[in-house]
Amino acid sequence: MNTVALAPGRAVAAATAAAREWAEAAPTARARALETVADALEAERTELVALADAETHLGTPRLNGELTRTTFQLRLFAEQVRAGEFLDVRIDRADPQWPTGPRPELRRYRTALGPVLVFAASNFPFAFSVAGGDTASAWAAGCPVVVKAHPGHPELSRRTAEIIHKAMAQAGAPDGVFGLIEGQQAGVDALRHPALRAAAFTGSERGGIALARIAADRPVPIPFYGELGSVNPVVVTRAAARARGPEIAQGYVGSLTLGAGQFCTNPGLLFVPADGDLVDEVVRLLREVPAAPMLGPWISEAYADGARRLAEQSGTRVLVWPDDEAAAGPRLLAMDLASFAAGIETAAKECFGPLGLVVTYERPEDLADVVAALPGQLTASLHGEPREAAELAGLTAALAERSGRVLWNEWPTGVSVTHAMQHGGPFPATTAPTTTSVGTAAVERFLRPVAYQSWPQSLLPPPLRDDNPWGVPQRVRG
Amino acid sequence: MNTVALAPGRAVAAATAAAREWAEAAPTARARALETVADALEAERTELVALADAETHLGTPRLNGELTRTTFQLRLFAEQVRAGEFLDVRIDRADPQWPTGPRPELRRYRTALGPVLVFAASNFPFAFSVAGGDTASAWAAGCPVVVKAHPGHPELSRRTAEIIHKAMAQAGAPDGVFGLIEGQQAGVDALRHPALRAAAFTGSERGGIALARIAADRPVPIPFYGELGSVNPVVVTRAAARARGPEIAQGYVGSLTLGAGQFCTNPGLLFVPADGDLVDEVVRLLREVPAAPMLGPWISEAYADGARRLAEQSGTRVLVWPDDEAAAGPRLLAMDLASFAAGIETAAKECFGPLGLVVTYERPEDLADVVAALPGQLTASLHGEPREAAELAGLTAALAERSGRVLWNEWPTGVSVTHAMQHGGPFPATTAPTTTSVGTAAVERFLRPVAYQSWPQSLLPPPLRDDNPWGVPQRVRG
Repeated sequence: MNTVALAPGRAVAAATAAAREWAEAAPTARARALETVADALEAERTELVALADAETHLGTPRLNGELTRTTFQLRLFAEQVRAGEFLDVRIDRADPQWPTGPRPELRRYRTALGPVLVFAASNFPFAFSVAGGDTASAWAAGCPVVVKAHPGHPELSRRTAEIIHKAMAQAGAPDGVFGLIEGQQAGVDALRHPALRAAAFTGSERGGIALARIAADRPVPIPFYGELGSVNPVVVTRAAARARGPEIAQGYVGSLTLGAGQFCTNPGLLFVPADGDLVDEVVRLLREVPAAPMLGPWISEAYADGARRLAEQSGTRVLVWPDDEAAAGPRLLAMDLASFAAGIETAAKECFGPLGLVVTYERPEDLADVVAALPGQLTASLHGEPREAAELAGLTAALAERSGRVLWNEWPTGVSVTHAMQHGGPFPATTAPTTTSVGTAAVERFLRPVAYQSWPQSLLPPPLRDDNPWGVPQRVRG
Repeated sequence: MNTVALAPGRAVAAATAAAREWAEAAPTARARALETVADALEAERTELVALADAETHLGTPRLNGELTRTTFQLRLFAEQVRAGEFLDVRIDRADPQWPTGPRPELRRYRTALGPVLVFAASNFPFAFSVAGGDTASAWAAGCPVVVKAHPGHPELSRRTAEIIHKAMAQAGAPDGVFGLIEGQQAGVDALRHPALRAAAFTGSERGGIALARIAADRPVPIPFYGELGSVNPVVVTRAAARARGPEIAQGYVGSLTLGAGQFCTNPGLLFVPADGDLVDEVVRLLREVPAAPMLGPWISEAYADGARRLAEQSGTRVLVWPDDEAAAGPRLLAMDLASFAAGIETAAKECFGPLGLVVTYERPEDLADVVAALPGQLTASLHGEPREAAELAGLTAALAERSGRVLWNEWPTGVSVTHAMQHGGPFPATTAPTTTSVGTAAVERFLRPVAYQSWPQSLLPPPLRDDNPWGVPQRVRG
């Protein structure tokens, strides 16, 4: 037993006790708290990266980059808190001439939803874990956060939690603004806690669907923001394959095997013309990639199982396969477009790891319908030549209809944290297609609008007052 | 059988076929279609209001006002479509110096979610029915709409549908942009249709929860925006009761009995000081209000049943009750704060109709905890005196935490359609606390973000292009 993790009931109760103070904190105070956490994590960088590497085998360079991303993310959300735009302040002055009858004075903003439960992911021990994007965006919204640690990196989770507790105390934040819980049952218990207001999750389709059902079946259902499965289709046009075959093959193999294929945005599905030698080149390059250690045996076993199931599906040919059936190394399978379309329900299911399925097409005009039949995706990529643009409008629309982000001649792994990033998509990519879990818009998931009608100035929340003490943007009408 | 309503499968299929064309329509075309529908409804005003009155008994003045609100709403959303702000266009230019590594060019906007199913309400045969707020906001977002007609006003629903079909055709909108379906099973079948992307509902808690479960349990779950039950608490301070007792009593009785109490925002719960004669005045005035016809026997029977159940609850006193047990007339019950708190689960349940529950308190400092224990509300009102403001901060926070709109010295019935309106709230007021179903922000429920990474200009959706042919606001960074 450790001394950092709390019982789920205690963690949610502490979050509830802290909710109002944290929601009402001035932007400068809340922003400073996020920055204090970022500083504290940076100060322990060497220790944290070593802990993370020991538990996840992701390697020091990648983990250093991921920690940089994590602290950058905290600071970017701190900036958003100071700017106050996400409060979406709208002020309608009273208008006796309003066409539907006298309009009262209305002042609306978005305030914190309340205590949020975050289920940490295994594959990003910093950026989607204890102090990751879900936590940072919920804090920015003014919500206390309870994190259910991922069992894949328990010591790192506890150490991160200690650092957060100390930094938050130092910044003067209320005690319950953060709490760590451990174990599957604790996660379910917290999700069922009546005082919880929302939950966020990054992980497997099966786990996410089970938790989403629990959230929906509560006596008081709550929003559940789950980021689940995605195979991230990549379409290569015949012209692109001819013009840049080797370059595309190299890019694909790099993206497919990055981090042992353990990315939500891993490009598991590659549509290529049946003629030409692009596939041969992919095979050649992929055979050169050694097996990398995966996050843990529960991942590598599920990967080997999933790959075997797909290899046994009707119409599948094996192109790259390790001598050792149980090895975690890259695998490549192929089928033609008709076989894929016939078995799309299983063929388009995510298999977490470096498994690529090549789908060969004869007629590019058949692609849009197959893409339209795909389950929802986080990303969809198109490799084409500029001169083809006019012919690709239908395919572009189909790719955008099925995914949250479309990429032209680039690879989906490596999700930049920016204002215009979208990391979401139709189910099962996420359970909430109107939202994102990466980028500054992620904060919107944890905000709830409230309107004050004819309310006295002295009792209004600061962002709604005429004297605007926080200096936030106000849209005034009338 | 009538010739307007479609089978659910056919309606959703037609909506699906129309989805892309409608989503990609230029703002001017989509706005003009909404305005054409508004014009067409206005042109048939006399006939529509007469039909509505025959089926709902709501009276010609109210129904004329409601139709005005409905066409105003369509035009307000048309204005929003032209303005293009809700597209939330964000453009991040490529930035090789971005702290987490080179940032690609990203262009993000919000596009239509796809076919939407709207369950019409009984109590607003125009404003929350076939061409009501849910329909108008989904159309504005670019979503085709299938409306499940409410059986309380079938002829009006069909006539409205005919007018919409004709107006949409005249405006050049694709055929499936609107479809009417009838019957409970048709509604459920449409909700389960795989091509459906979201549903909106205004109605009872029981019906809404059942439909929300169906939406969540689909193989592909979809967002369900339900506006369900609310008792809309009103707190009167001792100082206000003393200063303006008769005025408050009159305001309360007027709001409670407006439209035979058939409003989502009907103030069913009145907290008043135990001393003083405010309650006597409410009783006196309420006895003078005659029974008004309700929407139908299914409503008046549920109302009489609900009122009887509450009257039998421990601690309840009957203050106003009709001689005829089955009559639809106003009823007033009372209990003290302790009894209310002890039985809050049943005492705070919505009973649709002109039923008031007066809760008497001795110590104002006990109120905030009871308010905090209330289920989620659409509105919460506070009647106080300006000099009390300093003492009311805690109560204000509790009221705002439990509701979507708080009102100072005003009454909750009469929801203005404006930019800053919020018509929503924590469950069971709604199933989606981050959203509103009235006001211009209602359109956000039907939008889904998509980011285009390094995508060629000629293949970008118009609002994301550098030449910005639609002239929408673009937030460009870098």
